[in-house]
Amino acid sequence: MDRNAVFDHIDAQVDQHIANLQAFVRQPSISQTGEGIGECAAMLARILSDLGCQKSEIVSTPGHPVVFATLDAGQPRTLIIYSMYDVQPADEPDWSVPPFEGRLVERAPFGRCLMARGARNTKGPLRSFLNVVEAITAVHDRTPVNLIFVIEGEEEQGSRHLPGFIADHQTALGKADAMYFPHAVQSSNGAGKILLGSKGLLYLELECSGELWGRGPQESAIHSALKPIVDSPAWRMVHALSTLTSVDGNRIAIPGFYDQVRPPSAVDEGLLEAMLPGFEPDVGYGLHRFADDLDGLALARQFLFAPSLNIDGIWGGYTGPGSKTVTPHRVRAKLDFRLVPNLDVQQTLGLLRRHLDRHGYADIQITVLGRAEWSKCSVNESLPQAAIRAYRSLGVEPEVWPMNPGTAPFFLFNRPPLNLPFCVAGLGHSARPHAPDEFLVIEGNDRVCGLAGLEKSFAAVLYEFAESSGAGSADTGTSP
Amino acid sequence: MDRNAVFDHIDAQVDQHIANLQAFVRQPSISQTGEGIGECAAMLARILSDLGCQKSEIVSTPGHPVVFATLDAGQPRTLIIYSMYDVQPADEPDWSVPPFEGRLVERAPFGRCLMARGARNTKGPLRSFLNVVEAITAVHDRTPVNLIFVIEGEEEQGSRHLPGFIADHQTALGKADAMYFPHAVQSSNGAGKILLGSKGLLYLELECSGELWGRGPQESAIHSALKPIVDSPAWRMVHALSTLTSVDGNRIAIPGFYDQVRPPSAVDEGLLEAMLPGFEPDVGYGLHRFADDLDGLALARQFLFAPSLNIDGIWGGYTGPGSKTVTPHRVRAKLDFRLVPNLDVQQTLGLLRRHLDRHGYADIQITVLGRAEWSKCSVNESLPQAAIRAYRSLGVEPEVWPMNPGTAPFFLFNRPPLNLPFCVAGLGHSARPHAPDEFLVIEGNDRVCGLAGLEKSFAAVLYEFAESSGAGSADTGTSP
Repeated sequence: MDRNAVFDHIDAQVDQHIANLQAFVRQPSISQTGEGIGECAAMLARILSDLGCQKSEIVSTPGHPVVFATLDAGQPRTLIIYSMYDVQPADEPDWSVPPFEGRLVERAPFGRCLMARGARNTKGPLRSFLNVVEAITAVHDRTPVNLIFVIEGEEEQGSRHLPGFIADHQTALGKADAMYFPHAVQSSNGAGKILLGSKGLLYLELECSGELWGRGPQESAIHSALKPIVDSPAWRMVHALSTLTSVDGNRIAIPGFYDQVRPPSAVDEGLLEAMLPGFEPDVGYGLHRFADDLDGLALARQFLFAPSLNIDGIWGGYTGPGSKTVTPHRVRAKLDFRLVPNLDVQQTLGLLRRHLDRHGYADIQITVLGRAEWSKCSVNESLPQAAIRAYRSLGVEPEVWPMNPGTAPFFLFNRPPLNLPFCVAGLGHSARPHAPDEFLVIEGNDRVCGLAGLEKSFAAVLYEFAESSGAGSADTGTSP
Repeated sequence: MDRNAVFDHIDAQVDQHIANLQAFVRQPSISQTGEGIGECAAMLARILSDLGCQKSEIVSTPGHPVVFATLDAGQPRTLIIYSMYDVQPADEPDWSVPPFEGRLVERAPFGRCLMARGARNTKGPLRSFLNVVEAITAVHDRTPVNLIFVIEGEEEQGSRHLPGFIADHQTALGKADAMYFPHAVQSSNGAGKILLGSKGLLYLELECSGELWGRGPQESAIHSALKPIVDSPAWRMVHALSTLTSVDGNRIAIPGFYDQVRPPSAVDEGLLEAMLPGFEPDVGYGLHRFADDLDGLALARQFLFAPSLNIDGIWGGYTGPGSKTVTPHRVRAKLDFRLVPNLDVQQTLGLLRRHLDRHGYADIQITVLGRAEWSKCSVNESLPQAAIRAYRSLGVEPEVWPMNPGTAPFFLFNRPPLNLPFCVAGLGHSARPHAPDEFLVIEGNDRVCGLAGLEKSFAAVLYEFAESSGAGSADTGTSP
């Protein structure tokens, strides 16, 4: 099949494709609050149905539903398209546009960009991929590979109910040859990123309260004149947290934590070195100094292969204007661990609990809010090789990241029982996920693809995968 | 003048007096937000004018106004009545009644109580005192002492503009013989507290941000997948705070901090021992264990004479439901120091700044939100002696506290240039200041006075002070 005719169709339809993206990001779908989730799932299921999917279902879970669709094109090879329709909240005060308006703004040096919550993560890339399916079927009537869409609504909450969905649909999913996460991961300097892994995540809420402790204020904050004779859950939380990291906050101080960390392999090191010319860890945040003033290979290695412990939020007591003299009865903190091979979630949780207990903080309550295991795919598998060829066919030299610093539930596809190879790939640039002014480049420049280029790269991945042998390397690197 | 006729009048008018309190607490006057401040000041000035004050002014300050009134009764002795009409916010979710409704509720074992923000702190006692002035002038046409009312609207923000007011009105205030803070400070077990001091306060906001630090996220929170290579202002704040106290949060770890702390004098120790039989540190919070498991004399000494450092609030990053994976660019904390003789505000601020700087936290910004120096009055002064006699005349044995664990701007009256003796006194019980379900006992029981008893004790203090010689002891203990 002639992919150039598809490319021409994409070029001709780009205004309609932009409008499709705008309509999709205008529909809020906030994972944490549930706002718009049902409407967004329904919108997505309709789009998939209109694309010609033989089946397009909204599958209930105890949380937000999974949109599950199959497009059987009668082809020998089958890809699972994994993505998500949920987004982070957009309550930051610093947005320069309304986050659900789908506005196109000029953003140097990229020209016009779609600036909206979800523009990058991940409604922009998802809708772009669906534009591509639409273009291919318009031109050639059928896609070069069969597609199984698994589009979840809880990725931003750690994909809590995706394991259950996958267990329930194991037979259908078992027909796939690989899992592809279409994304816009080209660096701002034009480097053609392909990501072959995902860090694990353990997202926790810690609560320290007088009631749990049996000391200090019990039911509510009290007048702080009592502090000389009253224990403080706030100080307790501060001191407990301070035991968890080095003073600079950059090394985890839980005994035994690093014992299971596997250093990058020789192949990984080779890929890290090959990454360096275009390596750009920042995605639009204006960072100018990195931890420990790292740069070069050490920075890349740390970014991709180091675990971390982060404070996502902390709150307790009086936080309004001016002064209120109270000793709070409760302080809470949200923390996340990023886990690399071979750190697993349960083991990490156990180490944290034991560490707190040994420091006398058995009363500090841990609630797990999200969990994902790490995953890793060999560069020699046919899907990454297809992505590499696709990029080169479009004139972009690939930059293969052996690990993704972010977290996605790829392990659910990559580990048993499905054991699928996977990758994240797509040209086109997007930035500022989980932050104000999140954006996806629409116009592009001489280094970075715009929307049309992004869509062509998705199409090229599908064509290259269809043409590949299907024989992956034995070195899948998928097991812990 | 016959105080019994005044007492009979109070008994006869108690329903009207309750209604007066309800009307006053129904008018919000939230210091931090300014809500209702202007209306409350106007209401108060009208009440004072209606009481027969020759002058009743709303004196502007750069913040909330001071209500300033004089009731010249042609008597030889003059008292400044210091109080406040502002209150803390009432945004805690745990209120069992609407905080500005002025509802009367049964609260065992006290019978009917007024439950409202300000019921104790301090609109309830203030309005009760004004009821007493009304009763005295109704029965006897004039009060036994001249009264100068200084009712401020910024006590809950550290009386920021009261120093300026006092400087501007030094001549008028210089006519007074003493300063009286009428309050409902009887313990729940009936002990007749009289307070002869006030701790100092230094209320601060600390800010730790990537921008100030020059490291980590700069303008907004960023995706926490970057944590392995990005410094965290949240961890920095946690570690900086952890250097400020012992691990249990109960001893200040700033070098030199305790050098200026003066131990209680022999007179103080005598008063502490005399306090013990009725000593009740808790005011309705349900506390059941105190710091270091202290009790008895050690608990009383710690409560009245130990300095403290409290976390009033801490906040930063994502604090909503579920999970949002961000590395915050800024964390803030509100802290308060309680200062005892001879710790002063400026010295304490300097010690904190130096401590943070020496630990490498020069970038952590300190904003002063409130400041007050400690104050202390000798028990031998004529006003405390008048309060002691007043209590005994009502059949209540006084329990003299040589220091008040709380903070009030008494130092502005007690230190030069005014150098006035002062005390806090009044029977009747109130509890839960700065907390949900703040209340003032209206009905009372066999141990605790209700509103009528509270008002009689205020009247008795005025009569006893009028009859006292005016010769105070040389041991004023007022200077640092």
